[in-house]
Amino acid sequence: MNVAIIGVGLIGGSMAITLKEKGFASHVTGVDASETHAQKALELGLVDEIMTLGPAVKKADLIILATPINAAEALLPLIMQEVDKQVVMDVGSTKKNICELASQFKSRGRFVATHPMWGTEYSGPEAAIKGAFVNKATVICSKEDSDADAVAMVEKVYGLLGMHIVYMNAEGHDVHVAYVSHISHITSFALANTVLEKEREEDAIFELASGGFESTVRLAKSNPAMWVPIFMQNRDNVLDVLNEHIAQLRKFKACLEKENYEYLEELIGKANGIRRIIK
Amino acid sequence: MNVAIIGVGLIGGSMAITLKEKGFASHVTGVDASETHAQKALELGLVDEIMTLGPAVKKADLIILATPINAAEALLPLIMQEVDKQVVMDVGSTKKNICELASQFKSRGRFVATHPMWGTEYSGPEAAIKGAFVNKATVICSKEDSDADAVAMVEKVYGLLGMHIVYMNAEGHDVHVAYVSHISHITSFALANTVLEKEREEDAIFELASGGFESTVRLAKSNPAMWVPIFMQNRDNVLDVLNEHIAQLRKFKACLEKENYEYLEELIGKANGIRRIIK
Repeated sequence: MNVAIIGVGLIGGSMAITLKEKGFASHVTGVDASETHAQKALELGLVDEIMTLGPAVKKADLIILATPINAAEALLPLIMQEVDKQVVMDVGSTKKNICELASQFKSRGRFVATHPMWGTEYSGPEAAIKGAFVNKATVICSKEDSDADAVAMVEKVYGLLGMHIVYMNAEGHDVHVAYVSHISHITSFALANTVLEKEREEDAIFELASGGFESTVRLAKSNPAMWVPIFMQNRDNVLDVLNEHIAQLRKFKACLEKENYEYLEELIGKANGIRRIIK
Repeated sequence: MNVAIIGVGLIGGSMAITLKEKGFASHVTGVDASETHAQKALELGLVDEIMTLGPAVKKADLIILATPINAAEALLPLIMQEVDKQVVMDVGSTKKNICELASQFKSRGRFVATHPMWGTEYSGPEAAIKGAFVNKATVICSKEDSDADAVAMVEKVYGLLGMHIVYMNAEGHDVHVAYVSHISHITSFALANTVLEKEREEDAIFELASGGFESTVRLAKSNPAMWVPIFMQNRDNVLDVLNEHIAQLRKFKACLEKENYEYLEELIGKANGIRRIIK
């Protein structure tokens, strides 16, 4: 099968590795706005050739749209206008806007909206890795708006990637990811800025920073080119969660200010409830 | 050498494993306020026998005080009164109070204040692991107040544990750990409460939570019995950092509210600077 990957970075590149390895993709065409990324993807063997968007879409049986979500929205109309029997899937972190956009095209049925819940704080073709996605969840949104054969092909792709599929509507998806992904990134960015702002003696941080600090600020290395468009699109949900998060932090602050350590213990005990969710 | 471990949990137990394995400790005596923990430590072979505090201190060449810091402060006077030639080291997360406390005893020179920068979100003897501490930093505070032979013994212990030693005064230590450890725990607890509070459909979190979420809330599993006393003792420094952190979060909030995405990009770009510190 001919697969076109639009955006040969962390996600697109990692998908290409597995789909070639499993024999699903006999030929992978890469499309990328960055010449450097395109060239690197070719060198790394993530893709077999580099083409421009139009011919790549024409040649492909499956088109995987794996750019940051603002670029995905700019490119989707161009793709949908060209699409005939091909299947198009996106992998973006928000789903409401792109589903609405896709609905404006008569080829809507060929499009499947998805979001694989895997990533790292790195980006670009060099960040692509073998064995990504395995045992993680992926979301397929508004399945009923896609043709049955298109959904079946996408389900096969995620099966090969080793992911389990959760079906959800686009609005519900966007609310949930505000909690389980977007807010973690904001707290991590803010935590990095807190430390960088106040702690001038960076050597001391470097010496003392242990595993706990590393795991909470790891996400702060994430690329703004990916994350600004996500926060832009999921603004209302993210603001809701961010307000709640600031309110929760204020409770800890009030405990310390008032030296109310019984309530502090209660707050921590409550937070321990996350054990039910994260093993 | 006879080693007494007061508090045979994550830290004390993990130290016992290595110190026995390396032949430094020929005999390890465990002391613990919890009968269950003491019994478990004996069963797991972390310690060779269980005793009460007085006789354990008398018998030991080295006493490692590894309880939560509130208990450590309650026990330190009892130990310091008994100490003659023995060396006493603590491993608590705050250093100013315990150093001040130790200074009230004529045996002050036998005490070495330390803080190994390693831990996990788990506690108790079953959480103790082999190979803990390796390649991490440990702090020795106010070295000049300890006898040279006592410092030398503690340096030897940390050498065997595979740690590199950073020397610092107690006040400086408490400021730095507010940044690199204590605030990470507060944001993690608050993040867990945010999600648990607002997101009622726990199944959805469970399905969708990916690595990023897991790493930011991991610390929220940490034990309140350990952390409340730390926040209590380092209250002023933690409040300083917490205020700054809330101010940083408010900047992200303002960006979203005002749709100022240029500034949002700038804030994220700044946060990326953490790459200089965390590889």
